[in-house]
Amino acid sequence: MTRKINLNADMGEGFGAYDIGNDEGLMQIIKSANIACGFHAGDPDVMAKNVMAAKARGVSIGAHPGFNDLWGFGRRKIDMSLSALEHAVTYQIGALQAIAAYADLKVTHLKAHGALSNMAAVDKDMALAIGRAIKTVDPDIVYVVLAGSQLESAAKELGLDFAREGFADRQYDDDGNLASRKLEGTVFKDPEIALKQVLRMVEHGEIVSRNGKIIQCQVDTICVHGDEPTSLGVARYVRDGLEKAGVEVVALTEMDFGREN
Amino acid sequence: MTRKINLNADMGEGFGAYDIGNDEGLMQIIKSANIACGFHAGDPDVMAKNVMAAKARGVSIGAHPGFNDLWGFGRRKIDMSLSALEHAVTYQIGALQAIAAYADLKVTHLKAHGALSNMAAVDKDMALAIGRAIKTVDPDIVYVVLAGSQLESAAKELGLDFAREGFADRQYDDDGNLASRKLEGTVFKDPEIALKQVLRMVEHGEIVSRNGKIIQCQVDTICVHGDEPTSLGVARYVRDGLEKAGVEVVALTEMDFGREN
Amino acid sequence: MTRKINLNADMGEGFGAYDIGNDEGLMQIIKSANIACGFHAGDPDVMAKNVMAAKARGVSIGAHPGFNDLWGFGRRKIDMSLSALEHAVTYQIGALQAIAAYADLKVTHLKAHGALSNMAAVDKDMALAIGRAIKTVDPDIVYVVLAGSQLESAAKELGLDFAREGFADRQYDDDGNLASRKLEGTVFKDPEIALKQVLRMVEHGEIVSRNGKIIQCQVDTICVHGDEPTSLGVARYVRDGLEKAGVEVVALTEMDFGREN
Amino acid sequence: MTRKINLNADMGEGFGAYDIGNDEGLMQIIKSANIACGFHAGDPDVMAKNVMAAKARGVSIGAHPGFNDLWGFGRRKIDMSLSALEHAVTYQIGALQAIAAYADLKVTHLKAHGALSNMAAVDKDMALAIGRAIKTVDPDIVYVVLAGSQLESAAKELGLDFAREGFADRQYDDDGNLASRKLEGTVFKDPEIALKQVLRMVEHGEIVSRNGKIIQCQVDTICVHGDEPTSLGVARYVRDGLEKAGVEVVALTEMDFGREN
Repeated sequence: MTRKINLNADMGEGFGAYDIGNDEGLMQIIKSANIACGFHAGDPDVMAKNVMAAKARGVSIGAHPGFNDLWGFGRRKIDMSLSALEHAVTYQIGALQAIAAYADLKVTHLKAHGALSNMAAVDKDMALAIGRAIKTVDPDIVYVVLAGSQLESAAKELGLDFAREGFADRQYDDDGNLASRKLEGTVFKDPEIALKQVLRMVEHGEIVSRNGKIIQCQVDTICVHGDEPTSLGVARYVRDGLEKAGVEVVALTEMDFGREN
Repeated sequence: MTRKINLNADMGEGFGAYDIGNDEGLMQIIKSANIACGFHAGDPDVMAKNVMAAKARGVSIGAHPGFNDLWGFGRRKIDMSLSALEHAVTYQIGALQAIAAYADLKVTHLKAHGALSNMAAVDKDMALAIGRAIKTVDPDIVYVVLAGSQLESAAKELGLDFAREGFADRQYDDDGNLASRKLEGTVFKDPEIALKQVLRMVEHGEIVSRNGKIIQCQVDTICVHGDEPTSLGVARYVRDGLEKAGVEVVALTEMDFGREN
Repeated sequence: MTRKINLNADMGEGFGAYDIGNDEGLMQIIKSANIACGFHAGDPDVMAKNVMAAKARGVSIGAHPGFNDLWGFGRRKIDMSLSALEHAVTYQIGALQAIAAYADLKVTHLKAHGALSNMAAVDKDMALAIGRAIKTVDPDIVYVVLAGSQLESAAKELGLDFAREGFADRQYDDDGNLASRKLEGTVFKDPEIALKQVLRMVEHGEIVSRNGKIIQCQVDTICVHGDEPTSLGVARYVRDGLEKAGVEVVALTEMDFGREN
Repeated sequence: MTRKINLNADMGEGFGAYDIGNDEGLMQIIKSANIACGFHAGDPDVMAKNVMAAKARGVSIGAHPGFNDLWGFGRRKIDMSLSALEHAVTYQIGALQAIAAYADLKVTHLKAHGALSNMAAVDKDMALAIGRAIKTVDPDIVYVVLAGSQLESAAKELGLDFAREGFADRQYDDDGNLASRKLEGTVFKDPEIALKQVLRMVEHGEIVSRNGKIIQCQVDTICVHGDEPTSLGVARYVRDGLEKAGVEVVALTEMDFGREN
């Protein structure tokens, strides 16, 4: 039986006159795009451009909601009430759904951005609030979660399909969280190291942490980046390596989700 | 045959700690609410509160998109490109559609706010951009237009259902546009005067302008306000007066629209 | 010897079309105004209006910087870097200084707003960052601090003049912090209770906490509010009561500060 | 007698995670930096970084205020009241003055950005509103104006020092305004063409328009750019060419302004 894996990336994080990341390059490598929805980044024009590009490349699209904090690019923790958080996520999903109509695409997944994601990964109430937003708008939307986190627990509790995410170019701590970017060597610039980590996740369900600890970890989707000089090359190498290893790289919509997997 | 008319009002124009208008009072008088979508006013919490209140009162809801200008409350002209304008309206409709799911309501009309509406009333390209946003997201959404304006022309050209709007508490210029608020007496505080204007519109299809000119004017919906001390009383008086005169006050969804009317 | 005390209030927290609080009423009661600087509330017009009103009433003005979070009205904790925080405060002070030139006034004090103040009261690094902003722009600016908090420690460490603040209409916890607004009875609506608390602070240097504990507490300035229906009446009663008790109510600029007091 | 000319550039137009332009490269070529003030671009951190860099390079600094429109990068016309406009400019100058204290620098000039500048160049009331902001905050600030525009008239009427600006890398229309960027060839990528235009301005007080018309034009400062791939090379070539031609390139503070020049 062929193994399947999804590749995803955060896209559409420009704003007005500002560009960031490498949407065009990534769109040719990934199978599912997480599109910023105008709160931490993105504007309606950038969103429209990205849904059209996704359509053209056969890439499935998801909402990438964040805190309403353009200055902090959604990377700063903000202490919102759970209902305000839920409504803010609902709002962002809807905004993207409407823009997606330009490309006749459906929003088929959601992945929280930055500080929102990091906070919800360890705070089940927040993870549930995000999940309730999904359920309100479209219960078929797949909740992309950090494997083993409160996001995963929340998705299970709400009966939502979820995709467990691993990272290609980031090192892990012993507890399964990402090691801080600020530490030396935690962002892989060597494509070989990234591919090795990904293949071990996909083929053996294991991650080797920063300290050499082996963590059990089932993943459905691998996140790649395009914002650093080396990252696009890493992403391309990982994709090619997966295919060479006989792993089928598919859109999230082609995965076999289910509460049982 | 019973005449039908709709009463609408702009709602949900608070933001965060800020309240404005009288959403609760108006919701008991009107039949269709134009809900701000977070650009010129409104936030996801305020939107959620208003869709729930609309549901409870049997009021139909519409998007009330505006320029992305909270400081100016959407009342300042902003020189946007047509595509940016269209995308911004699309975005706002979608955001409200998602929030409306909390109340299991559909967004059934759209009325542009403030400077966006004023500009588009005399600029057909802008009116068409707004109309294309409607068509993209949901072609069944009724486009609320100033009777006789470029908004009406655009709706016709795009084959959209439209509702021609008249104002209960505002005086008109000879050309059918609203007289400036800055002029003495252009905002009616006397409910009797407002009702008289409304009944003449509804029963005879006529408006008497500031200078006494009679303007022909078919209206489907009457806009009332709640933001001035006297305006809620005026709105209530107009509604009661319409019913006493045998006019049925209905939601926009109960009107008999059509490209032929 | 006549005792002196200052009365301060947060002002200018409207934004664009939005009004909040009771600037006009408070300006007639207080002696020093903390003026919002456009980040959590306030805009350049509102600021200009308030500095003119302060000038007309002989009220001294201070900066009231907050997080850049209009939606949250500066009441949500945001996890900023210390340097970003310092620069944001510096920016806000400078903005108000420039606007103050319309009234030929100097910015003579600073009081942090909402979540920024609450966080810095228990986080000395944040309190120091705010203090460094003061030192950078004008070291003669008086730092208004919660008595006994990290704000006070930071002011001392930086050698800044500071004014220890007490609250007229808020109940205290045993540790000297304000009891949560959400608890019953923590916002005094009875002017007599407020005045009693203020006189005990001013005359005996004591606060009686929610649980009856007596806290030692030297205060230089008393904060009053104008945003609730009862609060303006409470403020007026406190001011009159202080004067009847022989306490001189003065501007912060007339207090005898000093690192030694 | 040595001719003097100033070279200026717009700087600090990044925001949060977003970079734009080439501040570092330009800072080594120009003598005066126009620093964005947080409304159309720039944030307190970016501003602080730029004032420190200006100090290090001996570059004088000016405020570069714009409309409060990050999405539009200050390039969209916004229809503000004159008093709101004036206050917004005052606010921005003050914010930069405070940040400039980190580098112990004074804000010595002001140049309006984008749509604000373009509108005020042909609308004397707007140009006067900007000028009044300067006068309010610091009447010694030099008003950088498009030569021959309403900005120049306003500066004269208010008795402000002003510097007439010419552009190195932009083609002119016959009326002395810049030809639209959208037209072919209006942004010079050939450094030789840019230098030739600059030398003709500086040495002969003339510009040759798009259609070959000779326009009389005294200039005190030349604007260069860093935001396009070729523009930094053009800027460097212009500076070197000026010096080779015996023109002294100085800070605006070293120019001999005066109402009589």
